[in-house]
Amino acid sequence: MKNPSAAVLIIGNEILSGRTLDTNTQTIASTLEKIGVIIREARTIPDEKQAIIESVLALSQKYDYVFTTGGIGPTHDDITSLAISEAFSVSYVRSETIYKLLEQFYQSRGEQMNKAREKMAFIPEGSTLIKNEVTKVPGFAIKNVYCLAGVPDIMKSMLNSIMPSLKHGNVVRSLSYTVMIGESKIAESFEALQNKYPSVDMGSYPFTKDGTHGTSLVLRATDYVNLEAAFRDLKSLIKE
Amino acid sequence: MKNPSAAVLIIGNEILSGRTLDTNTQTIASTLEKIGVIIREARTIPDEKQAIIESVLALSQKYDYVFTTGGIGPTHDDITSLAISEAFSVSYVRSETIYKLLEQFYQSRGEQMNKAREKMAFIPEGSTLIKNEVTKVPGFAIKNVYCLAGVPDIMKSMLNSIMPSLKHGNVVRSLSYTVMIGESKIAESFEALQNKYPSVDMGSYPFTKDGTHGTSLVLRATDYVNLEAAFRDLKSLIKE
Repeated sequence: MKNPSAAVLIIGNEILSGRTLDTNTQTIASTLEKIGVIIREARTIPDEKQAIIESVLALSQKYDYVFTTGGIGPTHDDITSLAISEAFSVSYVRSETIYKLLEQFYQSRGEQMNKAREKMAFIPEGSTLIKNEVTKVPGFAIKNVYCLAGVPDIMKSMLNSIMPSLKHGNVVRSLSYTVMIGESKIAESFEALQNKYPSVDMGSYPFTKDGTHGTSLVLRATDYVNLEAAFRDLKSLIKE
Repeated sequence: MKNPSAAVLIIGNEILSGRTLDTNTQTIASTLEKIGVIIREARTIPDEKQAIIESVLALSQKYDYVFTTGGIGPTHDDITSLAISEAFSVSYVRSETIYKLLEQFYQSRGEQMNKAREKMAFIPEGSTLIKNEVTKVPGFAIKNVYCLAGVPDIMKSMLNSIMPSLKHGNVVRSLSYTVMIGESKIAESFEALQNKYPSVDMGSYPFTKDGTHGTSLVLRATDYVNLEAAFRDLKSLIKE
């Protein structure tokens, strides 16, 4: 079975300017890994219509799923929904379901709808809604593109709600072995191990701790038999 | 004067699997912002030759600069240098300068060169070297592509060393105004302000603090006169 592939598309000037650290990519990657959906690419682009259209079209053609975050709020810089309508040549329409949800939500707080709040009800025609337990305003999905909020807690709630509807793949398991040896000392043995077990993906990550070089060796595979065999070999091959 | 544009290309399976949180994009963005180089896009791709070649070619054609991180170490999964040689159809050659640096470095620690260490001396022919004050092994630059290490401290050292050689642009200044008002209440006024000052880029970032909704309104521009005028207007327009 082939693992479903996916891309993450982070939409937001605040990430590209360095103002905000993106943590959504990591959350999406580690959440989807649990159901065997593999993130093959992540992109961050500005809040600009043309950039969104181009990236959404390119990524949705290339991967099984695209997960966007950001740009679905009430302000003028929130243009994800409009851009995606144009990308897929569908109308940008008011969802009466979302509108009623918003109306109820604001009424329950003694507040009224306004133009900005109404804007959050506009989505590409034919989208399905994505539940948001935090602030109630739904995200939306159209074709293989899932549009989630940028605020991490809301993004997580939306992601959890779509998990059951996604195709599952074989789960990638990973085993890590950390040694206080610099990676250039063990690289040759590690490469030989990679050649012996081509179905296991092996990565080497150097670090420094109290001035001493260490390396984390990470083995990842959906083939658990070879993963465990490779891990046993690794531990006998490389010793501190 | 037009601001130089740039893309960040993060090369590494460990980011796409969610194992490691990428902080290099934020560091590069906030560092380059100080000299007016604007990050227009960031991509994260796996340690795969074809993916590196395609992204490097696409981004180097589209932007003034490309900054890659990761994949320049001694292990078999470090293939950035080889992939970039192929991307630009130049030879993958041993730099005698790097080789001597490595030899001296290991000799000073009473160690010898080996095949994995020698690998770090291989770069695309015609590259210039990028100084690394941390572990000495240089990065390299070819055409408008700067290849930096993935380890954050080493990446920063390399980035600092190339800063003086980059074209500078007008520095983007930003002014932030944070209010404890939900963004849907102020979105209409904020949009009117954006329309009044088109040379100022305005972003709205919601957050929750102790259960109350707040919004950070961020104004960014290279046109400081309009930036300050817009900021004065903002503070008189939107009050808690």
